[in-house]
Amino acid sequence: MNILVTGATGFIGNNLCSYLIEKKFNIFLIVRPQTKIPQHLKKVKKIVYTGDTEKLQKFIEKNKIDGVIHLASLFLAIHNTTQIRDLINSNILFSTEILDIATKAKVKWFINTGTFWQHYNQEDYNPTNLYSATKQAFEDLAKYYIETTDINFVTIKLSDTFGLGDTRQKIFNIWNKSLVSGEAISMSPGEQIIDISYIENIIDGFAHMINLVSKDKSRKLNGKTFAIKSTKRLTLKKLSTVFEKVTGKKLNINWGGRPYRPREVMVPWTKGKNIPGWKPKYTLEEGIKKTILK
Amino acid sequence: MNILVTGATGFIGNNLCSYLIEKKFNIFLIVRPQTKIPQHLKKVKKIVYTGDTEKLQKFIEKNKIDGVIHLASLFLAIHNTTQIRDLINSNILFSTEILDIATKAKVKWFINTGTFWQHYNQEDYNPTNLYSATKQAFEDLAKYYIETTDINFVTIKLSDTFGLGDTRQKIFNIWNKSLVSGEAISMSPGEQIIDISYIENIIDGFAHMINLVSKDKSRKLNGKTFAIKSTKRLTLKKLSTVFEKVTGKKLNINWGGRPYRPREVMVPWTKGKNIPGWKPKYTLEEGIKKTILK
Repeated sequence: MNILVTGATGFIGNNLCSYLIEKKFNIFLIVRPQTKIPQHLKKVKKIVYTGDTEKLQKFIEKNKIDGVIHLASLFLAIHNTTQIRDLINSNILFSTEILDIATKAKVKWFINTGTFWQHYNQEDYNPTNLYSATKQAFEDLAKYYIETTDINFVTIKLSDTFGLGDTRQKIFNIWNKSLVSGEAISMSPGEQIIDISYIENIIDGFAHMINLVSKDKSRKLNGKTFAIKSTKRLTLKKLSTVFEKVTGKKLNINWGGRPYRPREVMVPWTKGKNIPGWKPKYTLEEGIKKTILK
Repeated sequence: MNILVTGATGFIGNNLCSYLIEKKFNIFLIVRPQTKIPQHLKKVKKIVYTGDTEKLQKFIEKNKIDGVIHLASLFLAIHNTTQIRDLINSNILFSTEILDIATKAKVKWFINTGTFWQHYNQEDYNPTNLYSATKQAFEDLAKYYIETTDINFVTIKLSDTFGLGDTRQKIFNIWNKSLVSGEAISMSPGEQIIDISYIENIIDGFAHMINLVSKDKSRKLNGKTFAIKSTKRLTLKKLSTVFEKVTGKKLNINWGGRPYRPREVMVPWTKGKNIPGWKPKYTLEEGIKKTILK
């Protein structure tokens, strides 16, 4: 199977590509001119995309791409006005161009990535920030292709993720750094519930989805959305005690030393449907163990 | 009241600006470098926008803009891949930038323009074409500002429009041209229902909306959508007999000489809510009379 991956150098993309290579899929990457390619992806066939849609279509046709996994995304928790152009170019324009071209090049399926943040207050749609609104906007544009073309388009919505090799300023990284340095950390009051998934569960979810969507000849999945949810949902405070238990170390956290963020998500989206027939392999504790106690 | 109008040189914008000037509103325009300004708008204060968001914010603040009427839009019935960039830049990026800036510059209200084509098959959302999908995408980006800022954001959805000075290749223009030239026209079988509104009704609807939204201090209208519907809905075939009756002339139409378009809308969106307290002033027949028998 020939799979084109966008966002291959991000945390999830990087891990997914390693998995797909190991499983003998033929993968192809679409990257930007400034993208730094990690060693293990250097040999993978790739196209540098600068907006030449015709060249991209030829690349997809020539390599007989069966499906696209679309992970590329510009994430901004908060935006300023001058960043709107980049947000829309990355998350809407690029996404729509590649989908449009995929439908013309007879690509069979397309796995899109959304976010729980499209569902502030548990609503069917209420964006937590402008980033999550661009995710919804792309889904609106995708709806046109879902309705009018032969592609099989599905969306996997993700919440927080963690795992080995994650360099983002995310919670376990922050806590781990504090364990090493011994410095105290100021955090919000910590009563918000956290939905966080271990990377190997995420990759397994995508692999399961590839299997489902590529076999779904009657396109029953077309237009459907699934969620990858954490094995356990805890308040941030309780999560810290799990972290302490697994690592056997005591965190030095000043709870309430910071206010909640504006539009802090206190209860992450609960209504997302699981990927049919799929269950996470690793518990939260196992994930933390495999990440921190490597 | 200080009103900023986008799309002022389009058919609706042009008519709306004339009306607003006559009614002594202070209007301001935002135009593109290549926009040709008609004579009656030459004296109106304007900003040429090339993406400098800071300059636009200063313009809005300096002129104490109370509200924005957003009519600018790139319309494409059918798109090709290379046009996606323009569609998204015009209908999503520009729209989001001006809304973002408006909220920062403490603009009180924003009237957005949508299309019945967001509701193919009478669905809550199903885009007839990619153009209408970009309209939906902007609404979903606007949702972020509806939820998080003090702006009062409403959308007016339009179907077909007609009137004096309309130069677009629209149905009454096509028929009128055929009456003059005597040439036969090939049309679809003509059983699709047409929802078409006379321009003075449209302008009156916008004027009514300005009044409502500017007085709505508690922002009860925020996030709401209204529709301007035709006074009478007829099949294209029956519409031609109304046209013949009003003009007193016989059309030479080859019905069925063309197929329906892909995704031809057979029954336009019916679920749109009228602007509260507003009714169209002119009947369809009066509108045609005022347009054709000028």
